[in-house]
Amino acid sequence: MSIVLGIDPGLANTGWGVLESSSGRLKPIFYGCVITEAHEPMQQRIGCIASTLEQVIKRYDVTEASMEDIFFAKNASSAISVAKVIGAISYMLFINGIKLSLYTPLQIKSAIVGYGNADKRQVQEMARILLGMDKVPSPNHAADALSAAVTHTFFESTQSRLSLGK
Amino acid sequence: MSIVLGIDPGLANTGWGVLESSSGRLKPIFYGCVITEAHEPMQQRIGCIASTLEQVIKRYDVTEASMEDIFFAKNASSAISVAKVIGAISYMLFINGIKLSLYTPLQIKSAIVGYGNADKRQVQEMARILLGMDKVPSPNHAADALSAAVTHTFFESTQSRLSLGK
Repeated sequence: MSIVLGIDPGLANTGWGVLESSSGRLKPIFYGCVITEAHEPMQQRIGCIASTLEQVIKRYDVTEASMEDIFFAKNASSAISVAKVIGAISYMLFINGIKLSLYTPLQIKSAIVGYGNADKRQVQEMARILLGMDKVPSPNHAADALSAAVTHTFFESTQSRLSLGK
Repeated sequence: MSIVLGIDPGLANTGWGVLESSSGRLKPIFYGCVITEAHEPMQQRIGCIASTLEQVIKRYDVTEASMEDIFFAKNASSAISVAKVIGAISYMLFINGIKLSLYTPLQIKSAIVGYGNADKRQVQEMARILLGMDKVPSPNHAADALSAAVTHTFFESTQSRLSLGK
């Protein structure tokens, strides 16, 4: 059994979602969103996000973490902010001994919906079904975080089947 | 008196330099560079950089930190890597209660050489003179880190003169 923390990183809003994965069964545990104020200094905002997620991993005994990575920069300054948040969370997980796996948006869409051109709502709806939830979690950032966590369980299970030679 | 850690962030090479600032006098204490290997996973590389700098702040009783920020992305993927390192270091300093000040390359050049079009070597040479060092520290990343630290002492001293109404 693993307890996976999924993260949708952002300086203003960082969504998170915890799920339990056991023999292919997925169960949502809890989810939420860390909001920081634009008037706060960057270091405080990053500190608030990573510290909150540190409480989450301790509270729910998280065993691994999954996050959407950023590569391209349509908007360079927003991409740089997101990358700073990714770096801070990576380090917080590092000092807590939790391995972080990063996935591209394409990997997440392909894993959950089956094709990379799926739109965000399709991904959220499919993740809802996979997790057996009544409705798509709100806010959207939490839903996207859960999608990252679900993606990780799919990649891990493929990986472990491959390494077993099945 | 303050002990300032200057940082030149980068995923492959993060330069650092510690200086003591006391009544306008600057004294270099120690400097170095953290090198990480490209074949290591990103989380390990970031963890190595921030953990090493955590040892530095503890070893030298650092009281404040200064780092060159990144805004534009000529090379988006390298900018995103640098931003992840900045985020990780920001958070490490946050949990150690050390305030981080970020400066643009223009602010650093203007503070040290007096004009924003100065090239890197002019900045390094001027920082060397200001710190009373025999030669520009090697590697360059350490020299750039010391420049960031010197810049911070200049901004802080202006700030304190302004607040004293002098």
